[in-house]
Amino acid sequence: MQPDVWELEVGSGVRGLRVNTPTILDVSFSFTVRATDCGARLGQFETPHGTVHTPAFMPVGTQGAVKATLFRDVEELGAEIILGNTYHLYLRPGDELIARRGGLHRFIGWSRPILTDSGGFQVFSLAERRVIREEGAEFQSHLDGSRHLLTPERAVDIQARLGSDIAMVLDECLSYPATRDDAAASMQRSLRWAGRCRDRLIMLRTSPGPGDVTGTNPGQAQFGIVQGGTFQDLRDESVDATVAIGFEGYAIGGLSVGEPIDTMYSVVDATARRLPESQPRYLMGAGTPEDLVECVARGIDMFDCVMPTRNARNGQLFTSEGRINIKNARYAEDDRPLDPRCGCYTCRHHSRAYLRHLYMAGEMSAGALNTLHNLSFYLDTMRRIRDAIVFRTFNDFRQEFLRSVSRLPSDA
Amino acid sequence: MQPDVWELEVGSGVRGLRVNTPTILDVSFSFTVRATDCGARLGQFETPHGTVHTPAFMPVGTQGAVKATLFRDVEELGAEIILGNTYHLYLRPGDELIARRGGLHRFIGWSRPILTDSGGFQVFSLAERRVIREEGAEFQSHLDGSRHLLTPERAVDIQARLGSDIAMVLDECLSYPATRDDAAASMQRSLRWAGRCRDRLIMLRTSPGPGDVTGTNPGQAQFGIVQGGTFQDLRDESVDATVAIGFEGYAIGGLSVGEPIDTMYSVVDATARRLPESQPRYLMGAGTPEDLVECVARGIDMFDCVMPTRNARNGQLFTSEGRINIKNARYAEDDRPLDPRCGCYTCRHHSRAYLRHLYMAGEMSAGALNTLHNLSFYLDTMRRIRDAIVFRTFNDFRQEFLRSVSRLPSDA
Repeated sequence: MQPDVWELEVGSGVRGLRVNTPTILDVSFSFTVRATDCGARLGQFETPHGTVHTPAFMPVGTQGAVKATLFRDVEELGAEIILGNTYHLYLRPGDELIARRGGLHRFIGWSRPILTDSGGFQVFSLAERRVIREEGAEFQSHLDGSRHLLTPERAVDIQARLGSDIAMVLDECLSYPATRDDAAASMQRSLRWAGRCRDRLIMLRTSPGPGDVTGTNPGQAQFGIVQGGTFQDLRDESVDATVAIGFEGYAIGGLSVGEPIDTMYSVVDATARRLPESQPRYLMGAGTPEDLVECVARGIDMFDCVMPTRNARNGQLFTSEGRINIKNARYAEDDRPLDPRCGCYTCRHHSRAYLRHLYMAGEMSAGALNTLHNLSFYLDTMRRIRDAIVFRTFNDFRQEFLRSVSRLPSDA
Repeated sequence: MQPDVWELEVGSGVRGLRVNTPTILDVSFSFTVRATDCGARLGQFETPHGTVHTPAFMPVGTQGAVKATLFRDVEELGAEIILGNTYHLYLRPGDELIARRGGLHRFIGWSRPILTDSGGFQVFSLAERRVIREEGAEFQSHLDGSRHLLTPERAVDIQARLGSDIAMVLDECLSYPATRDDAAASMQRSLRWAGRCRDRLIMLRTSPGPGDVTGTNPGQAQFGIVQGGTFQDLRDESVDATVAIGFEGYAIGGLSVGEPIDTMYSVVDATARRLPESQPRYLMGAGTPEDLVECVARGIDMFDCVMPTRNARNGQLFTSEGRINIKNARYAEDDRPLDPRCGCYTCRHHSRAYLRHLYMAGEMSAGALNTLHNLSFYLDTMRRIRDAIVFRTFNDFRQEFLRSVSRLPSDA
């Protein structure tokens, strides 16, 4: 039973690393849990580009931009960290070009922390003619059909060049549903790849290393990824073996891929419990506003999802009173703001009627204004979650939030 | 010969109106010329939504939005007035819906002055199956094929509902090249339409009027439009007859439609000279940065053009050292800002390499960042023009500006 409020400093995330190597990495990463309330954790981690308060939501900056926004706005909305997609940046404009620009932060003009994924998920979801072998994933670019081989080592090298503050290991992404055998085999391969990723990172840091890999962020941290599908015993095995390799933080992958929501919640719950209390837990690719609150309640510290930005561009808006589909004719003469409780630029300046007009007219500012609002809603939800943990009112907040947000107007 | 510095207040623009009617309109419009230098005029006009300093450039807000920007940015860049397209707003979302929202300013959330065109230009350039009769222009919507009749009276009514600060008369838009006979007939029809527009405005203001026209800006001014193609005697005739009808300001229409640049400049020169010194002169639809400077030198006070915004979305950027086509591979590793002399958000935060990447990757933020820069370049050019007139250095500025801006890199 963990104490309700406690503080534990984990310097340099080297604890796990010592399990299988005496090498101590120079990783400028530390995580502190400052308070807990009903399973939810309030914390913060330090990176070479600053502090991130958790629970945190990371807007997705796929190709070096958070779609339909400027970084000025992403910053003003309070995002402390964004996610970059290694697959996209590797293919265009290329990790080597980005390294020559001084790394991803300098190239894109974002000075706060960045987490990069490994590229694996896009290889499995976007690339053409992919062949997965023990060595790695061979695929053709969705852009020009060119052939590429993404190995665990290359995933580490690419992210070293990008210079993100947190790099992810390459994992095999299982499709849902999967048999237990497939899930087990895939999880085992992911474990072997995770070990190779950690070895590669240590090699890049400690030996002269291959001359062609010039890292741009010597304080880059590396997170492992727990797999195992919806089979909790496989998840448990994955947790133990991944933690034995030792990383600065741990992600739960392979969820939010079509499984029933209760399954996702229960896997998150049991998996998060088994992960080290002193290190950050990142649920990859989730989710709805309700998912954020429910998974914070299950001990998750970090989230990323394209939902707020993608839905915004499709006219789907999150509000404190449920979801709005701005295309609906009912909003044509609605002079109210999207969300009367929201203080974002869009809600302060524009009506539903105007936003509907912009959407129907195909104006780019529809995407921009909607994205500002949805990101504001997500980031504001994370702020409210953190406040609730501080004030020990998380459970009340959770009940009230689910009650109000889950209301679905008939047009949603 | 006009004095180098003089000041002349023209209250309510009623001077011309008295020519053919004793009715004095309640028009909250006045124009003051504060200084002149080598043909260029420094002035300002007052509208119900505030002051506009001239020479002024009006960003085009076609459908109630300046494409790829938020109004916050348009304001921050220093735009004091924007243009709205009556044709687009009439078709979608409709002038009556906008009137029910309280007018265009309230509907779109822009509190500074707005000028609306009459819709004529889009009927001639965009609509399908148009038939021009003395009564007006019959056309089919480019959106849904619905049939519409735009008469001079309807153009006034629609703009009254939109509630812009400056409304334009409906004119017939001549294609280029045109014979003298065609140009004369078209100019004469435009004159008759201008008279009907003025009569309609007076009727809306002074009599109970038709019950279905609820204006949303009782201080709306109305500008006449000089036509006549490239035939200066027709232009002269158009000036005299339009001024005899009497408007708060005068536009030069039918230029920047394909005629040689020298022809445009000489028509602008001779036409502007003939227009009243005490009222604003607006050159419609022009132009390049060079055109702005050259036409200010010929006495023009107001401009609008889609060039900065449209070119931005196509990757064509204006800089103090000539134009840049950001698609060009030469910029792939160029860490410099677009324009080292520019202080806009884009130039302060991002490199050419990043802007090229965003453009090649099809990111919406490419359009947004490029539009910010191009609008900044245009609005900054107007500021520099106004400063030069104040300091009596307009001629030096003009020479230096044309020398530097007209440099065309080989990729332009």
